[in-house]
Order: sequence, then structure tokens, then C-alpha cells
Amino acid sequence: MTPQTSDRFTDLGRLVVRCPDRPGIVAVLSRLLADAGANIVESQQHSSDPEGGTFTLRLEFVLHGLAVRRHQLEGALGLLAGQWGMTWRLTEAVHKPRLAVFVSRTDHVLQELLYRVGSGDLRAEIAAVVSNHPDLEPVARAHGVPFHHLPVTPETKDAAEAKALDLIGDVDLVVLARYMQVVSADFCSRFPERLINIHHSFLPAFVGANPYQAAHDRGVKLIGATAHYVTPELDAGPIIEQEVARIDHRATVEDMRRVGRYVERQVLAQAVTWHVEDRVVVEGHRTIVFA
Amino acid sequence: MTPQTSDRFTDLGRLVVRCPDRPGIVAVLSRLLADAGANIVESQQHSSDPEGGTFTLRLEFVLHGLAVRRHQLEGALGLLAGQWGMTWRLTEAVHKPRLAVFVSRTDHVLQELLYRVGSGDLRAEIAAVVSNHPDLEPVARAHGVPFHHLPVTPETKDAAEAKALDLIGDVDLVVLARYMQVVSADFCSRFPERLINIHHSFLPAFVGANPYQAAHDRGVKLIGATAHYVTPELDAGPIIEQEVARIDHRATVEDMRRVGRYVERQVLAQAVTWHVEDRVVVEGHRTIVFA
Amino acid sequence: MTPQTSDRFTDLGRLVVRCPDRPGIVAVLSRLLADAGANIVESQQHSSDPEGGTFTLRLEFVLHGLAVRRHQLEGALGLLAGQWGMTWRLTEAVHKPRLAVFVSRTDHVLQELLYRVGSGDLRAEIAAVVSNHPDLEPVARAHGVPFHHLPVTPETKDAAEAKALDLIGDVDLVVLARYMQVVSADFCSRFPERLINIHHSFLPAFVGANPYQAAHDRGVKLIGATAHYVTPELDAGPIIEQEVARIDHRATVEDMRRVGRYVERQVLAQAVTWHVEDRVVVEGHRTIVFA
Amino acid sequence: MTPQTSDRFTDLGRLVVRCPDRPGIVAVLSRLLADAGANIVESQQHSSDPEGGTFTLRLEFVLHGLAVRRHQLEGALGLLAGQWGMTWRLTEAVHKPRLAVFVSRTDHVLQELLYRVGSGDLRAEIAAVVSNHPDLEPVARAHGVPFHHLPVTPETKDAAEAKALDLIGDVDLVVLARYMQVVSADFCSRFPERLINIHHSFLPAFVGANPYQAAHDRGVKLIGATAHYVTPELDAGPIIEQEVARIDHRATVEDMRRVGRYVERQVLAQAVTWHVEDRVVVEGHRTIVFA
Repeated sequence: MTPQTSDRFTDLGRLVVRCPDRPGIVAVLSRLLADAGANIVESQQHSSDPEGGTFTLRLEFVLHGLAVRRHQLEGALGLLAGQWGMTWRLTEAVHKPRLAVFVSRTDHVLQELLYRVGSGDLRAEIAAVVSNHPDLEPVARAHGVPFHHLPVTPETKDAAEAKALDLIGDVDLVVLARYMQVVSADFCSRFPERLINIHHSFLPAFVGANPYQAAHDRGVKLIGATAHYVTPELDAGPIIEQEVARIDHRATVEDMRRVGRYVERQVLAQAVTWHVEDRVVVEGHRTIVFA
Repeated sequence: MTPQTSDRFTDLGRLVVRCPDRPGIVAVLSRLLADAGANIVESQQHSSDPEGGTFTLRLEFVLHGLAVRRHQLEGALGLLAGQWGMTWRLTEAVHKPRLAVFVSRTDHVLQELLYRVGSGDLRAEIAAVVSNHPDLEPVARAHGVPFHHLPVTPETKDAAEAKALDLIGDVDLVVLARYMQVVSADFCSRFPERLINIHHSFLPAFVGANPYQAAHDRGVKLIGATAHYVTPELDAGPIIEQEVARIDHRATVEDMRRVGRYVERQVLAQAVTWHVEDRVVVEGHRTIVFA
Repeated sequence: MTPQTSDRFTDLGRLVVRCPDRPGIVAVLSRLLADAGANIVESQQHSSDPEGGTFTLRLEFVLHGLAVRRHQLEGALGLLAGQWGMTWRLTEAVHKPRLAVFVSRTDHVLQELLYRVGSGDLRAEIAAVVSNHPDLEPVARAHGVPFHHLPVTPETKDAAEAKALDLIGDVDLVVLARYMQVVSADFCSRFPERLINIHHSFLPAFVGANPYQAAHDRGVKLIGATAHYVTPELDAGPIIEQEVARIDHRATVEDMRRVGRYVERQVLAQAVTWHVEDRVVVEGHRTIVFA
Repeated sequence: MTPQTSDRFTDLGRLVVRCPDRPGIVAVLSRLLADAGANIVESQQHSSDPEGGTFTLRLEFVLHGLAVRRHQLEGALGLLAGQWGMTWRLTEAVHKPRLAVFVSRTDHVLQELLYRVGSGDLRAEIAAVVSNHPDLEPVARAHGVPFHHLPVTPETKDAAEAKALDLIGDVDLVVLARYMQVVSADFCSRFPERLINIHHSFLPAFVGANPYQAAHDRGVKLIGATAHYVTPELDAGPIIEQEVARIDHRATVEDMRRVGRYVERQVLAQAVTWHVEDRVVVEGHRTIVFA
């Protein structure tokens, strides 16, 4: 992946296709793109089961004049979709997805997202930072990102979520970057497969609050972090990425939190990057990640 | 750690001491060893809590004529123990601990233990292999290790355990090397902090049977293995070592089992090695590992 | 990858194709396989340069009656090869490649290869073990593998290599599993891209003999191992796989050797497995690994 | 390591001692600290060679009223030093070391240092940022750190270094955080064992400029970074920390740079943290790191 200039992305398209697994689908899609003049630069596929499962294909291609010719390509894909029972999505890499980032008091994950957006490693725009605490306003402001302070109590939770939805407007992805509130099922339903959380443990170990204390009590030798899509069931959504770090018997709960911060920021930033590059496909309770 | 000759171990002693944390204990013990003519070559310590916790110290030292002078050293330590409320254990590295290894049908962990004993990386003697299946008899026999086939059914479990105890005789450590039977609380009580199991998941995730299937269902991105001391509560004993390996969406349950085998053998062999080198101290539900 | 029965492999084909990068090649190949009734189960591709580079494609497919219909498939591929300037190789997974393993005195890598062949994780046949020392004959014999002792001196090297070639006969891959002799350029030329060595350092650091001593002198904090194809230039062939392990200031050269053994066996076994599954393609001084 | 309040550090002392290895030194030092009323909370030691080598000991201790009683402790240590041929240094954790950070155009390592100082994970003060380019002035300013732009050409190098020395004044550590100039031997000599560089490769592989290009050409499968003390010989000073990240055949040189940035920032920040906590001791060409 060469220089982070927009040139590089101007004519770059991403196509993700899913359909019942049948011989021939790759040939047909390859032909369609070849006929359109596209050059496939990356291609990854997965079959949930070679016998009668679901086939998933992700293609990156360069097509000169993509912005103009996109409509034509979509037409052809639409025809194919009918014939093959196929769902698909087509994105242009040149467009930066808009993110809303929800935080509470700790800034390490937010800082990492801001750094990666700034460096171009994460090709996205942070449209808003929302928090139930005012602490991180200076961090957001220093990067020119609007900050919204929305205190949440059990009584005001519904209203606060409604207001948050209103404030963030039209975003492509919501990221819970150590946001210490459980979002409602209704909120989840607004962002199907577009709401990512970082949980500070190696799920499914230590579901719920205070995982580092629980990890310390259990005497684990590795601590972890898990980025996952949020579903109404707490900490049970499809996992996108996990990583661990080694600790030893000297580590206090506070040490675990400190070490864990570096794992969390890495795991969430990786998951968000894969998502915005359209590399993640949810399949039941699991994810396909075309890394 | 230089060549695996017995010379290297002849006069090497290991002392593990625990006592209430008070200033001065290190000075007193260092003085005792210095006065005895011992040269400390490795020293590690841990305080569960600097204010009023438990202090643990592990020393490796070279004392010429250790075998002869051990009695004298023990006398001095006994006196100190009374004064400082101290428990201690003293071992001579030259003596190889005797291990009994329990297996079922899969050989990968047993093979690893046999290899490491043969190479000298694990300084121990495998006194017996016990199995509820006959499959691995040739593996044990090829290495000159007695093999005992003891089938287990719910009805015969007590008798089988009794017979196993009889057959293995006086061993220093029992290793459950993918032994697919839950051992009884009574059996556990015979080997306090001397019974190590390898569980094929990153505990506490996926306690119980079939963890790879459970891991697959949950869609985790890392699979793990955990070596722990066995206590009557299933998969809840103090953890000695854990490790993970990365998998992706392509991994079937069978792939996870295959990848997991290499993690399991590594984790168990590491835990057993630390144990036989007297590097592991149990403290409540946790272990101190002076690696 | 499901159970290690031959069933699973009977109709499994692997096709590796290389050609100048032009739009349409994937479509044409996919169509060819679809027309033949093959179901593609794995597909990976790489372009050395999207503009005018070389395109490499690896496909795994299931084609019922592959053994019988292979000839027909080869005919079609031959036609295509002419049109597209394409080179290709087609293998049937059911056939186990024949390996010759060269060793000297240390057995850890040989043991690992034997274990993995035995477990089915490495789907190959070890046809012969050749050594310049007699030490490992029992290891080979215990696994029913012919062992050839061929002492090598500077004077007898040519003759010894000639004799080795004669003894090993027709093999698909030669593996230097800690063989402490430099093989001749002539020997290399007999096995182009079919001769794999394990070097006990993270190449290109510490080329040549005694890398652990050199690593110790330099005070590195990680030690490594490198599996690579052998070319006449010492330790300079295309790298297939590398891995490292952490050490600290306490590690002696002997400790590094001990830790290194576990890295070496892992790295070489991985490289050999990828090679026999036809996942490695040499491109200049580098390898493409479709892992 | 509990909350990052100054309380925690007020009475915390660090003592690093080196002397010829003789039985009894630990006893004497432990006694000295115990008599002074200090409670040792961390103790690590290393012998370069149990027979006639150099012994290194690092102690962390709590001594109420350390600031006041330090002088007395130093007196006692001074006496001991004469008797045992011992060198020592004593530091109070409460004092934050002053750092000067040299950069060029890339900000990732500087950002990481600033973040860690801000979070308290790196207990130090960044007294100045010096650069041969003006680009990172806003980054330094945003964190309230003085920034000095000192252009360097071959002709002005001596003058620029002299000016830099003048500007940074009295600092405890100089950090070259991707500073793309080779510093002079004279400059090195001003900061013996107090000048740390991050080299963007796994040293000693790829010494010199453009290591990612060299790594790409060689086709390595892991890229690395090395933090080391700077000596006049280029990239040859004692290594403090190294780490690697996995890449595959798809990685361009630019990808390697991008992946490498995250390794570099981690490795340098770790090395600097260990240094300021007085955990690193140089021994010849190597370092002892009491991590």
C-alpha cells in the first residue's frame, strides 16, 4: 500500500459478494470485472462449507473512471445478483467513512484513533466524539473534532441516546472506545454491523464490568482485549480481533490496566481499520476477516 | 545454563522460603548462606503486599559438598524458621524428580515430555505412563518407560484410581497430559500442588469438555492452552502458564485442534519444567513463577 | 482441514499459475475450472506489480475423478498457457511428496519432522535420512526410515554428495535439518527450489557458522531461525519462514542454543509443510507464501 | 505498580550496585538497608560469571523520609564501596528525569513519548524537542514542550550540535526518536549510556540507512526495530530492546514502513521507560535489563 495520497485511492473499488456456494461464481464475477476494464489487485474468498454453504468474495480492483462508471457496474452486478441469489456491496476507496467515537474518561483508544486518522493509516474521518463525561473535550478539540458531552443516568439514558443519535447525524460507523455505558438494544439496532466495541478482556473470559480485577483474581498469565460488533446481548457480538499481552505474578490490577491499554488501543484500531476497508463480513456469530 | 552434565548440578541447591514480610529477612538468609560458604547464583523474590503481606524468596546457590553439608544447612534454616515464622523447602538439583504421566489417546504432549526428558531440557525421570486406553503403549515402551493400561468407567473409577496410585508408587509429580478423565477429589488431595493438567483453552474461557468446538462457535481469533495445578473444582486450579495461537475464519474445529496441539505441548512442557526446577509457588488461587 | 483420511485428499487438486499480469486471467482460469466441474475451495493471488508485473495464482479445487480427468485438465491448461504466456503446475493432494532429510548430530528438527509426518500434520513421506555422523541412526530406524551414514571430509565431499544422490534416488524435496555441511553448487542445482535449509539465526543477521555465539556477543534480545531455499551463495537463498524467541541478559550461548532448538524445529516444519502443500512460489530473491 | 500519584514515589529509592562477584555481598547490602529501616520491594541480580565475574544488583526499597536520610545512606554505601570494590548509584523515584528528544520529520515516536509522559506510564519530563526540520514544532507546542529547529548540513553539523547542547542544557537522557542524522563521536561522549536511538531494523541486520528497503530486497518475513545506546560506531551500541512484526509477500516497502512505525514507537518507549526507572545496566557490548 503505497503513499497515502488520494491518487492511490481515486479509482480503487472494493466489492464484497455473498451467495450460495456454486461452481462458476468466481468465473462470472471475474469476467464481469474484466469486461468492464477493471484490474483485480486483491482477491480473497471463503466458503462457510464447500458443500452447500455460503460463498464470500472480496475483490479490490482498479477501474479508471470508477466514479463515473460505477453506475454501469452496479447495473451489471444487479443483474447477476438476481441470477445467483447474490448480495453485494460496492465501495469506492476514495470516500472516507464518517465515524462517531463514544468515550468516557480514558483517552488511550481515542488518542490512537486520532493518531491513525492523522497519519493516514486509518482512512476515515472522525465526525464527532461523544462522551458521558467532559474530560476528553480538550483532546477532541485539539484535533478539530466536535465534542458532545451527554451525561447519562439510568433515568436519562433513553433521552441521552436519542440526543446522541441526533448530534452525530449520518455516520458510517460508531466506535465505543472505552465507553463505560451499556448501549440499548434500540441503539444497537440503528447500527447493525456498524457498531464496534473494545472489551478489555479476552472474550469470552471475563464478560462484564471490571475484567482486569477478575483476571487478577483468577491468576491468568496473559491479559487480552477483544474488538467486536455490538449486539443487544452483552459482550456476545461477533469478534473482529483479539490480542493478548503477557503479565507475571508481580502485576497488580493497576499494572494490568496499564499494560492492557496498549493492547486495547491496538486491537480496536486494527478492527476499525479492517472495517473501514470493508474487510470484515459477519457470518452468524462469527466474522470473516479478509486481512 | 551451561552443559547438561550432572557436574553442573552436583552442588547446586534451590531454596524456596516464605514468611510474613518483614525488613531484614533477606539479610538474614543471605548471611546464613554466605556463612555456610554458598555462592548465590540466582535470586528472585516477591511480596504479595509490601505492607504486611507474604514474602517469597527463591535462591539458587552453589555449595561445594552440598550433599554432605545439607543436614547442617537444614538445621540452620530450621532455627531461622522458628524466629521468622518461615516455611521453606530445600532441594538438590542433582536429584531428578520422578514423574507419572497420565494420557488417553493423543500422544503429542507425551511425545514432547519424552523428547525434553531425553534432550535434558526437562531434568526429570518419567517413572510411568498410565492410560485409560492402550493406544500409547508403544510410545512409552519405545522410550523404555513402563506403561499401565487402566480402563476407567464410572463404576470402576475409584478402583482404577486406587490401582493407579499403587502402580505409580512414590512420584514427585503427576502430569495429566491430555488425560480425558476427571480425577477425583481424593486423588487430587494425594498430590497437593503436585498434580498438573493441560487444559486445551485459554482459561477461564471454555471450561469443561470440547473447548475447541466452543471456541469455534464463539468465533474467537486466538486459541489457547492453560497448564494449571489440579484442584477438586474443575479447571479452576492455580494457573502456571498460558499461551495462545492465532487462527482465522478459515479454521475448522479440526484445524483448531491441530494448531492447538502445538500450543498445548509447549505450555505443559514449560509448566512442568518450571515445577521441577522449583520455580512455582502457589499463593491462594494464583501462582508465583520465578521464570 | 478435516480428518486426515485420504478421502479428504482424493479429489483435491492444487494449481499454481504464473503469467504476466493482464486483466481477465482470473476469469479465464475460473471459467476453465468451472467448465471442468471443479469447485474452487481456496484461492489466493498476488501481483508483483499491478502495472506490468507478474501475476501468481494458487487454487485448491475439488474435482470428482481428478486422477482420471487430470489429463484432460492439463490439456486445457496447456492451451491457455500458450495464449497467456503462463507457466503452471498441477498437483494432486493425494500423492505424498517424498523427502530426503539430511542431518548431523542434533535430532530436534528430525524428531519434529518425524512427529508431524506421523501425526498427519505434514503430509509427506520421509524416504531417507542421510547424515555425516552415525548418531541419529536409531532415531530414523525407530520410525522405519532408511538411514545412510556418509562421512564427509573436504577430500571426500564430492564423492559423498554423489553417493547421497544415488542413495536417496528420486525425491521431491531435500531438507537440510541442521546438516552442518555446506552443500556444493552442483548439489544445489539438482534441486532448484526443492532444497530447504534451516539456519539458526534471523537472517540476514549472523550469516555463517556459530550464529548463537555471534548473537550472544552482539547482545541481541531476540534470537531467531530462518528456513530458506538453498542457493549456491551461503545463507542467501529465498526466505520461506522466520520466527524469533525472546531471551534476556541471563541467557548463555548454551541457553540460546536450547531456546533456539524449539524455534528451529517450528520454523523448518512450517516451511516444509507449506512447500509440500505447494503454497510457496519463488519470485526472484523472495518467496510468495500462500499460507 | 499502583496509582501514578507522587505519594507512591516519595520514599521509593533505587539502588544499582556492581562489584566483583564474592559470596556475602547480598548479605551485607541487605543488612545495610535493613539497618537503615528500608523495606526492599524489588530485588534483581545478575552475575556475568559465577566464577570471578561481575555481580550486578538492583534494589527498589521504601524508606520513610528518604529525601532526608539519603545522605546518611550514601555515606554507608560509600564505606562499603571501598571494602568491596563496588560502584553504585542511588536514585529517588520521585525525581523525574529530564529528556531531550531529537526528531526529524516523522512524528510517531515523539507522539508516543508525549502520550506516555502525559499518561504517567513514562515518568519523565520532556525538557526539549530538537529537530533538523521545522515540521514537528506544532506537535511539541501542543504539549507545551519547547521546540528548537536546528538545520544540519555537513558544514554546519559541528555548530548545530554545539548549539543543541547549549539549548537542551542539563538533561538526564537524550533520545533520538527517528532523528535522521548521525551524531558525532563528540556528541556521543557527552552522554555515555545516556543517549538512546531507535533503529528501524532488527540489528545487526540492515545496519545503516534505508533498512526497510533492504529488508524488502532480502525478502524477510519479519521486520523489526532496535533501541540501543549510541556509541561512535554506527548502529553498534549496546541493545536495550528489540521487537518484530510479521509481514508477508504482499508488503511493499511503504507497508513495511507503516507496520514498522508501530514497532518502533513501542520498542523505543519501552527502552526509555526502563532507562528512566534505572533498570538498564551496560556491561561491555551488552545490556542487563532488570525488567
